[in-house]
Amino acid sequence: MDKSIYLDYAAATPLDSRVLRAMQPYFGKEFYNPSATYLAARSVRQALEKARAQIAVHLGARPAEIIFTAGATEANNLAIQGLMKNYPDGEVLVSAIEHESVLAPAKLFKSKLMPVDKRGIVDLEKLEAMVNDQTVLVSVGLINNELGVIQPLGEISQILNKLSKSRQTRGVKNPLYLHTDAAQAGNWLDLHVSRLGVDLLSLNGGKLYGPKQSGVLYVRAGVKLEPLVLGGGQEFGLRSGTENVPSAIGLATALYIAQKERRVQSEKITALREDFESELSLRLPKAKINGQARHRAPHILSVTFPGVDNERLMMQLDEAGIQAAVGSACSASSDEPSHVLGAIGLSEAAARSTLRFSFGRFTTSMDIAKTISRLAQFTDSTN
Amino acid sequence: MDKSIYLDYAAATPLDSRVLRAMQPYFGKEFYNPSATYLAARSVRQALEKARAQIAVHLGARPAEIIFTAGATEANNLAIQGLMKNYPDGEVLVSAIEHESVLAPAKLFKSKLMPVDKRGIVDLEKLEAMVNDQTVLVSVGLINNELGVIQPLGEISQILNKLSKSRQTRGVKNPLYLHTDAAQAGNWLDLHVSRLGVDLLSLNGGKLYGPKQSGVLYVRAGVKLEPLVLGGGQEFGLRSGTENVPSAIGLATALYIAQKERRVQSEKITALREDFESELSLRLPKAKINGQARHRAPHILSVTFPGVDNERLMMQLDEAGIQAAVGSACSASSDEPSHVLGAIGLSEAAARSTLRFSFGRFTTSMDIAKTISRLAQFTDSTN
Repeated sequence: MDKSIYLDYAAATPLDSRVLRAMQPYFGKEFYNPSATYLAARSVRQALEKARAQIAVHLGARPAEIIFTAGATEANNLAIQGLMKNYPDGEVLVSAIEHESVLAPAKLFKSKLMPVDKRGIVDLEKLEAMVNDQTVLVSVGLINNELGVIQPLGEISQILNKLSKSRQTRGVKNPLYLHTDAAQAGNWLDLHVSRLGVDLLSLNGGKLYGPKQSGVLYVRAGVKLEPLVLGGGQEFGLRSGTENVPSAIGLATALYIAQKERRVQSEKITALREDFESELSLRLPKAKINGQARHRAPHILSVTFPGVDNERLMMQLDEAGIQAAVGSACSASSDEPSHVLGAIGLSEAAARSTLRFSFGRFTTSMDIAKTISRLAQFTDSTN
Repeated sequence: MDKSIYLDYAAATPLDSRVLRAMQPYFGKEFYNPSATYLAARSVRQALEKARAQIAVHLGARPAEIIFTAGATEANNLAIQGLMKNYPDGEVLVSAIEHESVLAPAKLFKSKLMPVDKRGIVDLEKLEAMVNDQTVLVSVGLINNELGVIQPLGEISQILNKLSKSRQTRGVKNPLYLHTDAAQAGNWLDLHVSRLGVDLLSLNGGKLYGPKQSGVLYVRAGVKLEPLVLGGGQEFGLRSGTENVPSAIGLATALYIAQKERRVQSEKITALREDFESELSLRLPKAKINGQARHRAPHILSVTFPGVDNERLMMQLDEAGIQAAVGSACSASSDEPSHVLGAIGLSEAAARSTLRFSFGRFTTSMDIAKTISRLAQFTDSTN
């Protein structure tokens, strides 16, 4: 990283040098196709399976429940399309603030958007009311990528369990599964699938100081998916293609480090974010933080600067060496205002005055102080 | 690579150190999400688009016709599923010796297998007879991954053009496209899509001394595909997910080197393969080379050793430090005899006595000599 102040860790994280080191042998002499049958290839297969088992441990899962994918977008698609293809009359419910990689595959099927309240939290009563006997899948992201709010997955899971039991007594055959896009969560939260109460979970190495387009989908044993990509039958038939061994090993290493350091990092980054928030309220009193104040991820802060054009502010910051995001990177290239900010009740004008700041391993209190100064300077005329 | 004799280049190639060097900055300080809007991210976007343009040059295509995928399996699936989803009543024809990543997605739709003759070449008369007005796609691999035979794509393309013109005069609306899986071809053949006469072409970096699960699908402008993976709309809406920048840059570099060196390498490897063939015929006269002798790729040789169990021979070679393949790696883990060898008329017994040897950049004449000696030794009792 150069000397610029990077505040967009929710869009991409730099590759950890320890991760790159773990990948290196598999770029080099351990390059064999893990499906080949000579000893050297079998040893690469073993390394791949060891990576799968390591990831399974962090998720409290079995290795056979871990499917390597090329990133969380593919994992989300495999979860939703893969399941719903088996239930052509079924329905999928997704929260209104999900990432496009959840919203777009859901739209291929009968789907409904679950509203969130103005804090950005899924409305549990409405969720319960929206589930009907055709509902096969509910998908709620663990940490929202624009707001940083943490969804009450445990409570959602309990509601779904209750509804499942009612189905059983009534002889309704459709299963009811819970999927979570945990792409933003690996650095901060416990990922044990049984504690989260999920049947499907997507993870992304590119937000974990791991390789880009590394990812996994956890698929609880018994949940039947159709593959999106067919061929040699790799990944238990769910995702064909010669395995990306260095990427899988990189992801396992990145997840190990992230989970080992998550308490320390969470504490550190939460403190920095709280400094940022209190300095903001002192020096830019008109600025407004979006999403609920409690139960949020350490690293994401969505701030509305009333009357300020977010594109212009982003560019001014950029010129001053500070990198922040206009919405999420995935939708930044489109001109639409954020659907997430719309869903929590922000006007289009407010959405167009909102930046996302996201923090990470290399963020310092000096970075925060400099950023606040610049924000005060650039929004001065209008605030 | 260690001191073993690696003769399975058709399954995997080691990463070229020049390729790794080109990727390195994008693992490091150029880690930004190319969809972010600050300058540093825009510069990563530029590097990605430069890689796309470089690949387009080798294919004689426009950059907007190049879609980055996670390998050739995904590219084949995107070509076939992506097109056929738009023609639910359409039909796809694939040759009987295609890779599983072509056969399996074709089976999701109305599909027919085109026979090949005993040389392994698609029967052009039968092909012409099998195309009807519902046929939307014909898929024929450029170099077969087990036999090494090169298909007459130019002639196939001419037949399809003739049939397309006949459709126009008769007012038939369905288009007729030609796809080729060129995963085995990048090191040896010209890949200009207009000279090949194809509308869709899949490439794989993992066979090009590039990164595993790097790949592209060439999609001729005007050919409309549905994406398999939806979300942020990357890759012109055809393949969502944060771009794997190091992988794309690695693939572009690998393809550049492969295409620059292909004449020299082809000459060198053809000579080695011819040595292998003539030594075989001298010392193991019962051994039989499968597939036509002319118009074959330099690097692949399928050899049947009558009466010899191929699994056992593979293991004996492996113990002697020689790595060869029982069928293709992708099907090696299954117990089925090769569908390719079956399609050219080999009995199951003959298929189970067949090994694939594939050569590459680091193969030497000493490797060939040692392998022949070992083959003579291990097949002695039975030959």
